[in-house]
Amino acid sequence: MALETPPGYRPLSDRSLPAFLAGLPKVAARLGGRPGDWKVTEVGDGNLNLVFIVEGPAGGVCVKQALPYVRLVGEGWPMTLARAFFEREYFRLQQPHVGRFTPEIYHYDPALYAIVMELLRPHIIMRHGMIRGVRYPAFADDMAQYLAHSLYFTSDFGLAAARKKQLMVTFGANTELCRITEDLVFTDPYRLSERNRWTAPQLDAIAAEFRDDVPLKLAISRLKVKFLGAAEALIHGDLHTGSVMVTDTDMRVIDAEFAVVGPIGFDVGAVIGNLLLSYFSQDGYAGPGDSRADYQEWILDTIERVWTGFAETFLGLWRRREGDSDAYPADLFADAPAGAGLEAEHHTVMRRLYGDTLGFASAKMIRRILGLAHVIDLDRIADPDRRGLCETRALRLARELMVHGERYPAIADVTAAAREQRQRDAARL
Amino acid sequence: MALETPPGYRPLSDRSLPAFLAGLPKVAARLGGRPGDWKVTEVGDGNLNLVFIVEGPAGGVCVKQALPYVRLVGEGWPMTLARAFFEREYFRLQQPHVGRFTPEIYHYDPALYAIVMELLRPHIIMRHGMIRGVRYPAFADDMAQYLAHSLYFTSDFGLAAARKKQLMVTFGANTELCRITEDLVFTDPYRLSERNRWTAPQLDAIAAEFRDDVPLKLAISRLKVKFLGAAEALIHGDLHTGSVMVTDTDMRVIDAEFAVVGPIGFDVGAVIGNLLLSYFSQDGYAGPGDSRADYQEWILDTIERVWTGFAETFLGLWRRREGDSDAYPADLFADAPAGAGLEAEHHTVMRRLYGDTLGFASAKMIRRILGLAHVIDLDRIADPDRRGLCETRALRLARELMVHGERYPAIADVTAAAREQRQRDAARL
Repeated sequence: MALETPPGYRPLSDRSLPAFLAGLPKVAARLGGRPGDWKVTEVGDGNLNLVFIVEGPAGGVCVKQALPYVRLVGEGWPMTLARAFFEREYFRLQQPHVGRFTPEIYHYDPALYAIVMELLRPHIIMRHGMIRGVRYPAFADDMAQYLAHSLYFTSDFGLAAARKKQLMVTFGANTELCRITEDLVFTDPYRLSERNRWTAPQLDAIAAEFRDDVPLKLAISRLKVKFLGAAEALIHGDLHTGSVMVTDTDMRVIDAEFAVVGPIGFDVGAVIGNLLLSYFSQDGYAGPGDSRADYQEWILDTIERVWTGFAETFLGLWRRREGDSDAYPADLFADAPAGAGLEAEHHTVMRRLYGDTLGFASAKMIRRILGLAHVIDLDRIADPDRRGLCETRALRLARELMVHGERYPAIADVTAAAREQRQRDAARL
Repeated sequence: MALETPPGYRPLSDRSLPAFLAGLPKVAARLGGRPGDWKVTEVGDGNLNLVFIVEGPAGGVCVKQALPYVRLVGEGWPMTLARAFFEREYFRLQQPHVGRFTPEIYHYDPALYAIVMELLRPHIIMRHGMIRGVRYPAFADDMAQYLAHSLYFTSDFGLAAARKKQLMVTFGANTELCRITEDLVFTDPYRLSERNRWTAPQLDAIAAEFRDDVPLKLAISRLKVKFLGAAEALIHGDLHTGSVMVTDTDMRVIDAEFAVVGPIGFDVGAVIGNLLLSYFSQDGYAGPGDSRADYQEWILDTIERVWTGFAETFLGLWRRREGDSDAYPADLFADAPAGAGLEAEHHTVMRRLYGDTLGFASAKMIRRILGLAHVIDLDRIADPDRRGLCETRALRLARELMVHGERYPAIADVTAAAREQRQRDAARL
């Protein structure tokens, strides 16, 4: 039974795509030659959408189209086409703040729910590079800038109240994608669910332990309430290392269909949580001829620099009152004593964002090991015992950070704890 | 220069109103007789709108129409007509939860931005009764029920995530009315503004002191950020004793044009703050033949019962999992240890809501004394020295509660502090 779709919608194919693109003069010019010359390849290895690469004599473009269901699961899991709209709106609105870190959008087709955008070459999905142990020297600074600018300028600290509310109106409609996050991140991994999967039997015991862990279940539920009600900034909503494309010198963020006005720490935590997953996964690839020890230290250094760079940049924007905010009005804090008070307040807010970040980072780690959607960093470790050990370490750290985040007041405490978690049972590998 | 209005809009008058109502069969039947028999009286003594009472041989109705400007100020302060839409939407959505405490809505005209509703008789505005020292025995319980049900069932604790987001979409458009709150409650009283007014010269010193009070300015700014970004529940947004109509046995909430998805403590605090203002104002009316001491104790008792009743009812709804919530999922907290943990969590959340309530109550007190819009409870005290003393006491308590709320962990601590504040300088009256 085919799902109903709105009039004018049809899934594109390598056959129908050239005619569609030929109707877009700027795109056609970018490709060059004639439609018959264009090579179309469907590359959607993600979970949700159709993705085509189209190459012509002069250049290439990428076309991403929403399907009326979750591709990973099939028509049994219908999913709104509107996710293409939210992705495009996110990029359109964030463009002034982080344009150089996003793909250029050439065209959006509201009937086909299709985005025609820049073909990122020679970029690869960052996660793939990290599995091979590739360093990205520019990533930490670039991501820190991306996080600080995209989140500051869409928060009440950088955006006028009425424009912020307009974001809530637009993205408040993105309920179906948010529902996926609510279920898969904040709920399923902590209960019996047919959607969960994990390395069995190696993780059976810890999965059961987590399902009985009251402080952990309270902590994840508190984070869920924050995700539901803390309308802090326009967040990407799925900012893991599979949503980042990199070269040695460039970084681009893609796949923004989960965008919503939500907690700032959710995006920052997604980045840090996925870097920690990569850190623990490296032991699955290390061997006599391929030590990953130095690379693991690079990851921990990257984590520290992402947080530190984010916090410093965010604070800097706030101190300079960039943007057009109604929060902490300038004329209430004009003299020196008030200025000093405000500076202390800034740090209080950053500490709160840091705490949120640790919580959401942990949530992201746990869901990728005990929930439905995993990360290939861990899934590709062939030996299940070895994979289970890597995963167990990640779970132990995540549980500790989510329940006892206050024991790790600085980001260096987090990286130290990651190191210790690995060393505690290093003999087992 | 007349303000532009949408086609079809015209301000109603006692002349044009009967013809409009005659076109609404149910309303005409309720009034009885013929349009010529209907007596129309314009009674809008509020700050914003036209309000008509229409009486016919069989019964009466009330008609409230938005003007394209703030009535109190005139055409120099344009204001969206859409506030009528938000008021009607608030009542429509809250009706299932608190219908018996709202006026019945007979008709909404989207072109005229007019609401035809139940004529509340013999109700009076509660504030007017309190100035005369009239007790309303049912009020504390009724208001506790109103607050608990309206806020619980529209919060993430009682409403499914997607439906809650729909509220954010609808009321996220209510930016102009929110702007009034942002400016008049959270900003102006703490800075020099031409819109401010206060009892001068009696309050000149304390007004200047507040403008230099860094902890106070940080506290109010923190509350403002909460108002801007804490999307907790569908709040009324202006729930003072002038938005409540009462008889000995009935209570109705009116005037919901400030409705928005905001912090739960904002509505609860508005009620408590305005009761505290009434408490301090009583000394302006007391005299040898008219002691208000017992009445003041009744007010403090009412404050305690509003909070306690709200908290118990809200907690009860939550414990019974009424509504359809995605927060703290039932299957995560099914066994006894998890249930005990959840119960402790409930109390943690209620303590946070209590702290917010004290903050917002204080904000409401200060803005009514140092800002643009005052309350007649205080304004009608003829002797400026006496008025100034009542107001100073209210300001002192509000400042203490806003900056040091943690010193008042129970509502009885708040009422005790109010009592002490009055007694400290009792000799001056």
